Amino acid sequence: MSSDLSVPETRVLAIASHVVYGYVGNKMATLVMQSLGCDVAALNTVHFSNHTGYRQFKGTRSTAEEISDLYQGLTQSLLTDFDVMLSGYAPSAAAVEAVGAIGLDLQRKAEAKPGSFFWILDPVMGDQGRLYVNDDVVPAYKKIIHHADLILPNQFEAEVLSGIKITSLSTLAEAITVIHATYSVPHVIITSVQLSKLSRSSSTPATPPNSLTVIGSTTKTDGSPRLFRVDVPALDCFFSGTGDMFAALTVARLREAVFAAGPSLRSTKSWVSPDDVPATELPLAKATVKVLASMHSVLEKTLEARDAELRAAAIEDESAAGLSGEEKEKREYLRRTKAAEVRVVRNVQYLRDPVIEFQAQEWDKADLPARLQ
Amino acid sequence: MSSDLSVPETRVLAIASHVVYGYVGNKMATLVMQSLGCDVAALNTVHFSNHTGYRQFKGTRSTAEEISDLYQGLTQSLLTDFDVMLSGYAPSAAAVEAVGAIGLDLQRKAEAKPGSFFWILDPVMGDQGRLYVNDDVVPAYKKIIHHADLILPNQFEAEVLSGIKITSLSTLAEAITVIHATYSVPHVIITSVQLSKLSRSSSTPATPPNSLTVIGSTTKTDGSPRLFRVDVPALDCFFSGTGDMFAALTVARLREAVFAAGPSLRSTKSWVSPDDVPATELPLAKATVKVLASMHSVLEKTLEARDAELRAAAIEDESAAGLSGEEKEKREYLRRTKAAEVRVVRNVQYLRDPVIEFQAQEWDKADLPARLQ
Repeated sequence: MSSDLSVPETRVLAIASHVVYGYVGNKMATLVMQSLGCDVAALNTVHFSNHTGYRQFKGTRSTAEEISDLYQGLTQSLLTDFDVMLSGYAPSAAAVEAVGAIGLDLQRKAEAKPGSFFWILDPVMGDQGRLYVNDDVVPAYKKIIHHADLILPNQFEAEVLSGIKITSLSTLAEAITVIHATYSVPHVIITSVQLSKLSRSSSTPATPPNSLTVIGSTTKTDGSPRLFRVDVPALDCFFSGTGDMFAALTVARLREAVFAAGPSLRSTKSWVSPDDVPATELPLAKATVKVLASMHSVLEKTLEARDAELRAAAIEDESAAGLSGEEKEKREYLRRTKAAEVRVVRNVQYLRDPVIEFQAQEWDKADLPARLQ
Repeated sequence: MSSDLSVPETRVLAIASHVVYGYVGNKMATLVMQSLGCDVAALNTVHFSNHTGYRQFKGTRSTAEEISDLYQGLTQSLLTDFDVMLSGYAPSAAAVEAVGAIGLDLQRKAEAKPGSFFWILDPVMGDQGRLYVNDDVVPAYKKIIHHADLILPNQFEAEVLSGIKITSLSTLAEAITVIHATYSVPHVIITSVQLSKLSRSSSTPATPPNSLTVIGSTTKTDGSPRLFRVDVPALDCFFSGTGDMFAALTVARLREAVFAAGPSLRSTKSWVSPDDVPATELPLAKATVKVLASMHSVLEKTLEARDAELRAAAIEDESAAGLSGEEKEKREYLRRTKAAEVRVVRNVQYLRDPVIEFQAQEWDKADLPARLQ
């Protein structure tokens, strides 16, 4: 098993939240990356009983000082030889700055060896049109993103970072172009866009109504984007932690694709492919294809397991008899949230051996703003 | 892969320490149990940069209140349907008490279904003749052990709990007997004893000089022990986190063995086998055999990897040129400690498919105190 692993040995520093129960943040990312053979150092930014989707939780947040202090602990014991840093949720603007300082320090240490360190940053700020962090977290991210090699905003976060409202394929491409230019960040993936909800030119074939589109790009030498897209069927359920699963899989699969591209790319700063590599042949595109294949299988299995669990619970639950309507409703909500926890542990084979069903596509020229065509 | 898993689905609450870098405590236990298909809720009792074997670390300890609070978070969201609790290091007497209260609460919730919840307790207090916790932690453990189903002391901890100095096979058997009786704990494994250092009766065959012996026992109805032993070759290196690896593997393998024994045992309180099951046929003995096979392979691989890493480091290290003798020595110590981190991630196949080389043996009657013969 482990000897078949296609992912090269990778030492990752993962900075994100920890939950006792369930799979989000570092709890998800660590498991996913370890399943693919990565050696993960997990620096936890919060210590919660469960994810906030339950609408209640207990626990504590790490201060910026605690985060810096843990990193200082690694430094003093010479434990910072990381190949990749994956940074996710940080609970305050000061914590975001502390994470930024860690990324910068690791970059500085790797300066002499271009490509030996790569920073993937998930700018966790909000979703579905709404910030779920303090307002001051946004400028804190805007400062540190300049130093990241790849960022993974969702549609809303891409809007916040670009200042462009994404209402069409054309504005989507515009947003990515602006992000590349404004933050000099060489790789971007917008992790999920519901294109069926966007207005589109009548000349392009319709996206199936229940599909999600992931859009990525690696810049060329002149800073222009190389855009690719992968469409995947959307599942009829909201799952927490999928962003973290996406990011963790991307760490492993991107490194794999970069290694597969030969020794020259992996000793190139930020792993930016030569200009003659087309969008769909980018390591970023190849990685995304595998990432989405794994995710789709695991989420399908999760949906099956969720439905089975809810059916079983409906039969079993006698203890709710004496409860008020409101209490019953809360209980039902908690049960449904628990049942939708992503089932990773027993579906590791789909992480290791993704079944590729969805390919990366070049963007239709018709969808691009005139100046990108 | 996951579909071949022989370990039944198991929901574990693991309470132990977290380190950012390396593999001890919950960082080790979570990975090991997840690799065997267990769903692990990880409640972390400390948040350190690295294990204390480095002789320096940064980070914070959870208070007893924080531990209770996280558990309260699980309770309020109906997230406590655990099959097994594994409790390890707790940083204070109050924290040990808080962990004890969690174990008791889970037992109370499972009362109506005997065998549906099992508590494995690793009474982490010290090693090699020396306590590394505050003195008041000892009485705190002595209070909660009464409620555990299986405890996993090392030789020193078994001495502390039994009040018997282990100097021979006979006193070792005595210590286990006293632990069963004093704490009414049905299963005990003493996780490593260097029998070659103990005086022994001349009638028993000599243990190979570099071997470690693991001794376990499950009580009979009359409270008397059923003793078995497994001898494994000792490796010439100290590894941190092996106790945590042992405990985590035991969770999965014991549950597997209990399920294999049929439905009656797993609905028996504390999974105590009928009196006619001989020591070497106990699920505890069968589990121990698999646990030690996995551990031996992973530690052999670790030793190889360590040696390779130290050789590579010796060639590479130019940066030490300007350092003082003391600084060089410290650096060398840190490097050696890092190189000895247990290599689990890329050796998961040895956890999943242990190669059995060491069998459980019945104890020689000659080694037992007269009243046990």
